[in-house]
Amino acid sequence: MMQPYINPSPFEWTSITERPTASYESIEPLVASVFKAVLEQGDQAIIDFTLKFDGIKKTDFKVSDDELENAASQVPENLKKAIQNAKANIECFHKAQLTDKVQVTTQTGVECWQEKKPIEKVGLYIPGGSAPLFSTILMLAIPAQIAGCKEIVMCSPPSKDGTLPAVVLYTAQLCGLKHVYKIGGIQAVAAMALGTQSLSKVHKIFGPGNQYVTVAKQWATRHQVAIDMPAGPSELLVVADASGNPDFIAADLLSQAEHGKDSQVLFVTTHKPLMKKVSEAIEAQVNELPRKEIALAALSNSKAIYFEEDSTAINFINSYGPEHYIICVENEELYLDKVINAGSVFVGNYTPESAGDYASGTNHTLPTNGYAKQYSGVNLDSFRKAITFQKITKEGIQLLGETVELMAAAEGLQAHKNAVSIRLKALENEI
Amino acid sequence: MMQPYINPSPFEWTSITERPTASYESIEPLVASVFKAVLEQGDQAIIDFTLKFDGIKKTDFKVSDDELENAASQVPENLKKAIQNAKANIECFHKAQLTDKVQVTTQTGVECWQEKKPIEKVGLYIPGGSAPLFSTILMLAIPAQIAGCKEIVMCSPPSKDGTLPAVVLYTAQLCGLKHVYKIGGIQAVAAMALGTQSLSKVHKIFGPGNQYVTVAKQWATRHQVAIDMPAGPSELLVVADASGNPDFIAADLLSQAEHGKDSQVLFVTTHKPLMKKVSEAIEAQVNELPRKEIALAALSNSKAIYFEEDSTAINFINSYGPEHYIICVENEELYLDKVINAGSVFVGNYTPESAGDYASGTNHTLPTNGYAKQYSGVNLDSFRKAITFQKITKEGIQLLGETVELMAAAEGLQAHKNAVSIRLKALENEI
Repeated sequence: MMQPYINPSPFEWTSITERPTASYESIEPLVASVFKAVLEQGDQAIIDFTLKFDGIKKTDFKVSDDELENAASQVPENLKKAIQNAKANIECFHKAQLTDKVQVTTQTGVECWQEKKPIEKVGLYIPGGSAPLFSTILMLAIPAQIAGCKEIVMCSPPSKDGTLPAVVLYTAQLCGLKHVYKIGGIQAVAAMALGTQSLSKVHKIFGPGNQYVTVAKQWATRHQVAIDMPAGPSELLVVADASGNPDFIAADLLSQAEHGKDSQVLFVTTHKPLMKKVSEAIEAQVNELPRKEIALAALSNSKAIYFEEDSTAINFINSYGPEHYIICVENEELYLDKVINAGSVFVGNYTPESAGDYASGTNHTLPTNGYAKQYSGVNLDSFRKAITFQKITKEGIQLLGETVELMAAAEGLQAHKNAVSIRLKALENEI
Repeated sequence: MMQPYINPSPFEWTSITERPTASYESIEPLVASVFKAVLEQGDQAIIDFTLKFDGIKKTDFKVSDDELENAASQVPENLKKAIQNAKANIECFHKAQLTDKVQVTTQTGVECWQEKKPIEKVGLYIPGGSAPLFSTILMLAIPAQIAGCKEIVMCSPPSKDGTLPAVVLYTAQLCGLKHVYKIGGIQAVAAMALGTQSLSKVHKIFGPGNQYVTVAKQWATRHQVAIDMPAGPSELLVVADASGNPDFIAADLLSQAEHGKDSQVLFVTTHKPLMKKVSEAIEAQVNELPRKEIALAALSNSKAIYFEEDSTAINFINSYGPEHYIICVENEELYLDKVINAGSVFVGNYTPESAGDYASGTNHTLPTNGYAKQYSGVNLDSFRKAITFQKITKEGIQLLGETVELMAAAEGLQAHKNAVSIRLKALENEI
């Protein structure tokens, strides 16, 4: 079960917060060879790799309009309603992230502004495998649509029978996706990064995946493609004081632990008795889980840490930078104020992580592995870029000109200076 | 001189807009070996590489408080005033990018918000070499300070006498920098990415540099460090109609061309006679330049393109995605409306690129090499990350709970479902 720590000193924090380091370098040659083949042979390479890696003989990997439209009839009504509810909330929160143009006159006659424009072509990777992860379609396609991306390509690995699950197709269609492909793994990422006869090259690739997809996304950056963020195993940190409910906390920790054997689960508390109670609650709940083996394996790497002081607990949490961070304490404001490094934060006893995973409105594509220290989770701006503009009047360049001339000359860039001087001279002659 | 194209068809655009492809893979082994040495030997490795690569024997590579404070007396008054003027404008524009918290109730009892927090530790690389590029300090340190980054490390290669130029130190001090190091090249990037005895490991590295710095920054991403953007040679595209001033345009094209032999310069016009006039103006101006050889080399790769239609010109420009984009046309609104891919845009005859390079207020750290299609230039948000929060009330989870349960079950994640069910059950029992 969870390994307990009592008031560990900061010297121990590094080892406590250490993530399992996975080196994927051994996969790189395989990824490179798939990219090379896709670059040279296009669609034919996709067909070959789908047979080789997935054991599926497929020549028609584009999902037809009919398939998209017919999917709805195969999804239970209550599940469709649930997906629509989640969609409405995710739309609401991501639309709220639309921003006005930023515009200022920095000095007389010098107008500067910033506008955000959609990335024209984006690619969404939706993992398949053991379960249809349709929720990720909502998390990526909704902000892409709000941002105004012109072409949204989606790839997801086909099931053994060569199809995509109805709920995946339904969600894609609900989000207005038109370019959906039954392609998975490295070859899907390569297809989106390089383009083929039937698939547009995109500018940025989003979405989670296994180690092959992770390395392939990293490799794609060598081909003028951006990616949403580096990926790692999913993580949750729960902090609680005496006000925390041990059963709820145990359920949250288990919901993270069931993701995979390499999932990271940390429980931090300032109320020592809670360590034992949460442990007991986990034992009581874990046996009911279909994914019990996975959860137990993940829990064996997990830690329960007691800190006497809130301030120490907070420092520890920021030094970890959890992907998911649940706060169940009396003094919520203190903990909220001090959040520096986290992906998504869940506040109070009635805000389970799974609410944000599916339907509260926030995005579930979040930085793991400590990357919350420098990366945002996926948000509206992940699908846009900021462009700056400036317009200078005649008076403006007369007032600003000398500054530019002096700085350009001091940097030894005479032509930069000239570009200003020639205009100042023309204005002198105008008078 | 510039190679002319008349109404090229879209099939030719790819080759016209092609950038020189530089493959840096041959440098990777060297970069890897420097990183390994810095990881193992820390400061001593920095000392060794500074001797080996820069020919400078240095053991004290930290700039002292005295050095920082004394620099001001060695910089001419008018240059200091110019730097202060630029600083005020850059501050004004980047402060305007501060945003409020985004907060919405997505459905009854479900509150979601997004807050931006500073990246705690950032590293700024300021290139040295032939000239002191102090303007880049302004462009990186000012937004880092506004964002509230707690620790800002700056590295810049020492001159042959082992010092940094006074104007570089003055600018660093003016921007409130306290951790300035006389370290350049690969070893500077490695030091910031890995940390040494005297230098903090940072979370994100910013700044331009030569091919060694570029590869080192890319390599740093293997060590849990983010970078501002991939780098490439600088570029400028000018579009003009009959209202464009050929002398100004020539001066702007030359200001870009003097950067380096690999600089990219494109001139697009819908007014054919301007092609010859701009060509003549370039010939008249280029001879005066101290960096004439560089400018001529860059111009030999550059292109002048005539398009009959505005709409075609605009499509072409977006397919290129210029780092710097000057618009000198009668119908400014048309061209401004249609900007999709560009780093920074300069509007009208009196807005030279060099104004934005130094002092208008916009940032000059911009995406090159077509990366404007998916990357923003450096801006305030480059130094921050967005964190999402959610708080759900008892009523909220009662209303949203079933949606989460249904979706989690459909994805085969029972523990995710349980985390909601256990709360709903507790609430039922409360009544």
